[in-house]
Amino acid sequence: MTRAHNFCAGPAALPLPVLERAQAELMEWSGVGASVMEVSHRSSAFLSVAERAESSLRRLLSISDDYAVLFLQGGASLQFASVPLNLSAAGQMVDQVITGQWSKKAYAEQQRFAPVNVVASSADCGFTRVPPEAEWQPDASAAYLHYCPNETIGGLEFSFVPEVAAPIVADMSSTLLSRPIDVNRFGVIYAGAQKNIGPAGLCLVIVRRELLGRAREETPTMLDWQTAADHDSMYNTPPTFAIYLAGLVFEWLEGLGGLEAMFEINRRKAAKLYELIDRSDFYDNPIEVESRSLMNVPFTLVDDALDERFLEEAEAASLLNLKGHRSVGGMRASLYNAVEESSVAALCEFMQDFEKRYG
Amino acid sequence: MTRAHNFCAGPAALPLPVLERAQAELMEWSGVGASVMEVSHRSSAFLSVAERAESSLRRLLSISDDYAVLFLQGGASLQFASVPLNLSAAGQMVDQVITGQWSKKAYAEQQRFAPVNVVASSADCGFTRVPPEAEWQPDASAAYLHYCPNETIGGLEFSFVPEVAAPIVADMSSTLLSRPIDVNRFGVIYAGAQKNIGPAGLCLVIVRRELLGRAREETPTMLDWQTAADHDSMYNTPPTFAIYLAGLVFEWLEGLGGLEAMFEINRRKAAKLYELIDRSDFYDNPIEVESRSLMNVPFTLVDDALDERFLEEAEAASLLNLKGHRSVGGMRASLYNAVEESSVAALCEFMQDFEKRYG
Repeated sequence: MTRAHNFCAGPAALPLPVLERAQAELMEWSGVGASVMEVSHRSSAFLSVAERAESSLRRLLSISDDYAVLFLQGGASLQFASVPLNLSAAGQMVDQVITGQWSKKAYAEQQRFAPVNVVASSADCGFTRVPPEAEWQPDASAAYLHYCPNETIGGLEFSFVPEVAAPIVADMSSTLLSRPIDVNRFGVIYAGAQKNIGPAGLCLVIVRRELLGRAREETPTMLDWQTAADHDSMYNTPPTFAIYLAGLVFEWLEGLGGLEAMFEINRRKAAKLYELIDRSDFYDNPIEVESRSLMNVPFTLVDDALDERFLEEAEAASLLNLKGHRSVGGMRASLYNAVEESSVAALCEFMQDFEKRYG
Repeated sequence: MTRAHNFCAGPAALPLPVLERAQAELMEWSGVGASVMEVSHRSSAFLSVAERAESSLRRLLSISDDYAVLFLQGGASLQFASVPLNLSAAGQMVDQVITGQWSKKAYAEQQRFAPVNVVASSADCGFTRVPPEAEWQPDASAAYLHYCPNETIGGLEFSFVPEVAAPIVADMSSTLLSRPIDVNRFGVIYAGAQKNIGPAGLCLVIVRRELLGRAREETPTMLDWQTAADHDSMYNTPPTFAIYLAGLVFEWLEGLGGLEAMFEINRRKAAKLYELIDRSDFYDNPIEVESRSLMNVPFTLVDDALDERFLEEAEAASLLNLKGHRSVGGMRASLYNAVEESSVAALCEFMQDFEKRYG
């Protein structure tokens, strides 16, 4: 089997040129007589990798010096605890918007460290829309407002950045780098790498510097963003290979023309698939149109008895990892940056053909 | 430049056959049409990677079912906080032996969460020997005793496992898998991967199951070993590529004949270098003979004005990463499992020649 069309929700497809480069230099990298995995993180060779990765990311997202960029471990799930520990005093209220599985998980973990005010929730409609901001009830004393701009599992995405007084903290795991954003609107942005950034095992945190230095006394040193900022994310050994790969992904994005160009491609990919679903009585997507995700497109077969056959035939056609999350069922096509337009075209062609044969 | 002799203290050299295998299948792995980095951690293909890695490690170290094996993130430095949070009640005393930089770091972080009794310290002799156990003063009520069996920076190693009533917790980052050990003597063993296990970004924790479930209420979910044990280290996305590579390293060790065979090779490597140093008036190693590390051999040139020339000429001879840690100076040769006997022979030959020319 050669490389297939990979719609995995994460760890997700990586850009082919990035993998090719990594493969070519896996044994002997940068003239140092070793793999990039086999050199000290404090060597000049690796330090320049880390610096290039950060510079490239700063260019892509126009991140100003008012923000620190941290390369951490533990995934977004560890940040669910790090956020209240770094930003709220003991007993201080924090705000949370609930729009699906990931904001629910963040809510539960934050509750272990802070009283959490649910500003808004779309649980009542099964997380099929983003609650209109006019209905939100933020707490005036909240240390921050936390939300998940794109729910990977539900396929729900915010079309706006909230307008609140408190610093906004966003779990952008499955949306960061899919489109341009205005970083200045946020206090903290974080994202597990395994969607649009690099391999699993790396978590990016972009934090406004004025929010550093507020961690509670009981915060483990490794969870304190200030520690990471003070040591350029090298308080201890960072995940060097993941940082190297993320740097290659950032450079690939810059070569493509940056996030405006990527956004254009991503819009075409998503539009093609949503249009097919909307034209059909055979497929369905439950999400309100203006709340639909650019990256994660869940869909169902109206006759779910055909689900298994759909997945089997898709796999036979080299269309992989289309099964929906176990908590929602159905199908899901994740259309991250590295998923090429030709893969989306192949998926749409297959879906139309499948509908013809079974519809 | 081809592959050099790599004496890096970490991230350290990886076994050549492991890198060759990883390179060969980096683009297209296991017939799934994608890289191992691009598949879900919950896919059957990846689950079998994780299971094989754990089984292989259990065979290598004869780990019984009384112990859970966890594949975590954040390095040993995160465990410095996880250990007191998982094992001690608030206010309960914990025991620490101080023998160098890493046990000092562990001491400082634990102090943030618990009163710490210094059982013994070799600070008075500049960390040149392990304090004799007869002089230790453990606390009768301590939740555990924590120590660092091999100090990577100082080049100091315990030749015995302590005999105390409390569970023993060992930071084995730079010694695990270098020799056979009796896991049953320990309550918890943990190790950053980037020495003898795999690439940076993975931390192994081997914990006696009866010690699980004791975490303090304020422990972040991701730091609670019980969470990881309950979810086979997949509460969230684990560092999949690092686990895959660690599995290949474990299989390579089994193919070599396991830890007894590896220990024999490691003993020959270390003996060759220590003998050269001891025979010479030109080189010196400050550590008491019975406390010398098998993995990390620090040495000085009696005339330190020659240090820079030594390092330059070594590098020209493809002998890399011999500079001592910035906190101690001099040189250090790390002789981890993946450092071949031929590399140690090349180093010794160079050192003898350098002595002849400058001694």
